[in-house]
Amino acid sequence: MGFKVGLLGLGTVGAGVAQILLDATGRSPLLQSLELYRVGARSLDKPRPVEIPREQLTTDLQSIVTDPNVDIVVEVIGGLEPARSLMLEAIRHRKHVVTANKAAIARFGPELFDAAKQAGVYLMLEAAVGGGIPIIQPLKQSLGGDRLNGITGIINGTTNYILSRMTAEGADFGDVLADAQRLGYAEADPTADVDGLDAADKIAILASLAFGGRIKREAVHTEGIRNITATDITYADKLGFAIKLLAIARRQGPAVSLRVHPTLVPHSHPLARVDGAFNAIFVEGQPIGQVMFFGPGAGSGPTASAVVSDVLNVAAAMQAMGERATPVINPMLACSHSDFCPIASLDDLETRFYVRFLTSDRPGTIGHIGSCFGNRLVSLESLVQTEVNGDEAQVVVVTHAVREGDFRAALADIHASDAIRSVASVLRVI
Amino acid sequence: MGFKVGLLGLGTVGAGVAQILLDATGRSPLLQSLELYRVGARSLDKPRPVEIPREQLTTDLQSIVTDPNVDIVVEVIGGLEPARSLMLEAIRHRKHVVTANKAAIARFGPELFDAAKQAGVYLMLEAAVGGGIPIIQPLKQSLGGDRLNGITGIINGTTNYILSRMTAEGADFGDVLADAQRLGYAEADPTADVDGLDAADKIAILASLAFGGRIKREAVHTEGIRNITATDITYADKLGFAIKLLAIARRQGPAVSLRVHPTLVPHSHPLARVDGAFNAIFVEGQPIGQVMFFGPGAGSGPTASAVVSDVLNVAAAMQAMGERATPVINPMLACSHSDFCPIASLDDLETRFYVRFLTSDRPGTIGHIGSCFGNRLVSLESLVQTEVNGDEAQVVVVTHAVREGDFRAALADIHASDAIRSVASVLRVI
Ligand SMILES: NC(=O)c1ccc[n+]([C@@H]2O[C@H](COP(=O)([O-])OP(=O)(O)OC[C@H]3O[C@@H](n4cnc5c(N)ncnc54)[C@H](OP(=O)(O)O)[C@@H]3O)[C@@H](O)[C@H]2O)c1
Ligand SMILES: NC(=O)c1ccc[n+]([C@@H]2O[C@H](COP(=O)([O-])OP(=O)(O)OC[C@H]3O[C@@H](n4cnc5c(N)ncnc54)[C@H](OP(=O)(O)O)[C@@H]3O)[C@@H](O)[C@H]2O)c1
Repeated sequence: MGFKVGLLGLGTVGAGVAQILLDATGRSPLLQSLELYRVGARSLDKPRPVEIPREQLTTDLQSIVTDPNVDIVVEVIGGLEPARSLMLEAIRHRKHVVTANKAAIARFGPELFDAAKQAGVYLMLEAAVGGGIPIIQPLKQSLGGDRLNGITGIINGTTNYILSRMTAEGADFGDVLADAQRLGYAEADPTADVDGLDAADKIAILASLAFGGRIKREAVHTEGIRNITATDITYADKLGFAIKLLAIARRQGPAVSLRVHPTLVPHSHPLARVDGAFNAIFVEGQPIGQVMFFGPGAGSGPTASAVVSDVLNVAAAMQAMGERATPVINPMLACSHSDFCPIASLDDLETRFYVRFLTSDRPGTIGHIGSCFGNRLVSLESLVQTEVNGDEAQVVVVTHAVREGDFRAALADIHASDAIRSVASVLRVI
Repeated sequence: MGFKVGLLGLGTVGAGVAQILLDATGRSPLLQSLELYRVGARSLDKPRPVEIPREQLTTDLQSIVTDPNVDIVVEVIGGLEPARSLMLEAIRHRKHVVTANKAAIARFGPELFDAAKQAGVYLMLEAAVGGGIPIIQPLKQSLGGDRLNGITGIINGTTNYILSRMTAEGADFGDVLADAQRLGYAEADPTADVDGLDAADKIAILASLAFGGRIKREAVHTEGIRNITATDITYADKLGFAIKLLAIARRQGPAVSLRVHPTLVPHSHPLARVDGAFNAIFVEGQPIGQVMFFGPGAGSGPTASAVVSDVLNVAAAMQAMGERATPVINPMLACSHSDFCPIASLDDLETRFYVRFLTSDRPGTIGHIGSCFGNRLVSLESLVQTEVNGDEAQVVVVTHAVREGDFRAALADIHASDAIRSVASVLRVI
């Protein structure tokens, strides 16, 4: 029995997928049951790293998702439309869909999964988070016996690359970004990456799987890395921390807290050493404790590896299902939840903070800052006056875990007084 | 539709499994389709961390594996017999089997998998390697599109704990072992762990999955950590390496090389920072590049998490299969290969070496050592005379990647001359 794959997109990821499908040697024997049947792209004439016979190639993607011979549609064109409509159309034509499109899944997940459920087909998305890192299926299958409490990920390669270089070179954000763009590590419009939006898409997807409920994309509190300075990286390092853009989803009572922000990570934490374009996802659960998945967060080959693993899983499930009239879906591959997760308020979050003040070098300043925090029940782990230039001083404070609302109130009090000149930066600490 | 689980063993892992099965809240909804039906142990009266109704408990394990109501047998009694016979009997009675027993699988895998194939049932072993770390299913499923080239694992928690403490404290093997035994990190008879036998069982299993062929357990070249000294750890550290007991399986031409030995790991390698009782498995493949799975390598909860994930996968596959007369096996869960992997000779292995000589502090020694290596085409990365006590010196050599056979020949030449007093240690380097 053979399965026919219709591939939408022949760019970075699509070409990688085609390369694997066209060369099964040394890979899963199941690959031999797959046929790369039709391929869609915008241009028929572009040179490609993989040779596709001209008669298989089309610019008419609609004709692929409606082709009665196609069993599995792989969507790797990216973007919201026409990706969403093509996936919906494929599903309506009872084709299984494999996608790498985190933006579309984070926004249209409920619509797409409802459609898939109704049609009795699989909608798979291993490649949407963490590039080549196996994380979606492990969450569905391997950690099915666990009560998950938190997911903490470095899931955007561009920002991790930039922060790693800023750390290694003591360089500033703007310079490293420009260089990263030159080298192809950052896009011409870097917004989705550096402002945390891409990581927010991904943590919404992970949280949905980990906590068994749908997530509204807007529920993810998102801060990017544009304001991170070489100064903060240096101070953090002295205090024993690396600065990473973390995407965090945690159970918080009956609700889930969801956020993406630059974070101080203790050097001893496994995530602190995930550098460059690598990604890692750290999962906490009961009874497993802590596990981490580490690997290449993007790139043609790694992402294609994840896409193909989904295709193989679907093919295996189809094979096991045989020629049955009514499809039966394997619950370890499907996402069946339909309720939305309640979202915790950021104010109720308990976390540690790092804050750097610029102050005038006047007696009493430290005492005043300390008592503003104390009045709001914000207990401090350290408070250090670290550097003095002329009449200016810097005061770096690290708090114990406190309610975010209390911390913000204390900051407002400090602001309102004239004890400080400015708050140079506020970062959370894990 | 409900599935009945027969649990063989209610020790460390068995009790953990029972705890998960008896408390489904917050875990995979599929758990609700599972019933802990019967439990077997040696003693009916031992106090247990989990309450099992007396009528479910039996010492007659045979009656569980032949019980017509049992769908899935979980084998967590350990050891070779009666574990092997019970699993075979369960399979013959068309029950799916989930086991954590690396010793039995590494030795009787072919017999057990043949029986499972013939009976049309699953034989699952996620917990046999890496405790709670998802690695078996990711190898079968997530990396199915990859051509795997190598697996390098820290897959024995006891030895990693001992080496980590030796490193942190500058302590000697014997002292740390005794303390680890006192604290329950090492068994009274530590042979299986410290001599590398447990890691060898596990790498045989991983290699079989990664390279799609059966592995003869005897094919794993195995060296333990008894001879590692605080001195070597210190020298290695100065040279930029941690010493870890690695289990390594690599493609070597058309064959596979399999070995367990203490190894110098560069501080920059992700495995160098896997400390204490944690395990990690580093996988290299094309096109994925490098991925690493990190987590707790043993313990009641983590290991039970892995066992339960297998039970869930089997239940999901049974559910998807429905009430069919002839069972159809999902190839992503089964191990279908039946040929044995050809095994490479250790002599043909290309690897780097670290060697420490004790010599008399005589002029010409270093030159002589250097030329013995040179004559055998062993090229050196560094050669340092590191310490002199009275008339004794130590010479530490790190080679480039060389044929192991050539290196051994050079060592024999050096031995045969009177240039050195002894070879204090020989370790491989990755
Ligand atoms: N690149 C990565 O490392 C990576 C990692 C994880 C996930 N992803 C996700 O994978 C998806 C694809 O990314 P990519 O990097 O492969 O993108 P890409 O290199 O830009 O490739 C997009 C492909 O889709 C085709 N295409 C786009 N819009 C089309 C349309 N309207 N009609 C017909 N063809 C169209 C393009 O055709 P032409 O070639 O003819 O222009 C191109 O072949 C995205 O969702 C992305 O988020 C990518
Ligand atoms: N412990 C870990 O962290 C870990 C991690 C990975 C894999 N594993 C594997 O998991 C398996 C179980 O390990 P474990 O640590 O749970 O062992 P354990 O604590 O010694 O428990 C063994 C259980 O099996 C029962 N049992 C043993 N032989 C029996 C027999 N002949 N008839 C009836 N009952 C028998 C014992 O009964 P009683 O309680 O009545 O004596 C006990 O409940 C082993 O294969 C081990 O390699 C363990």
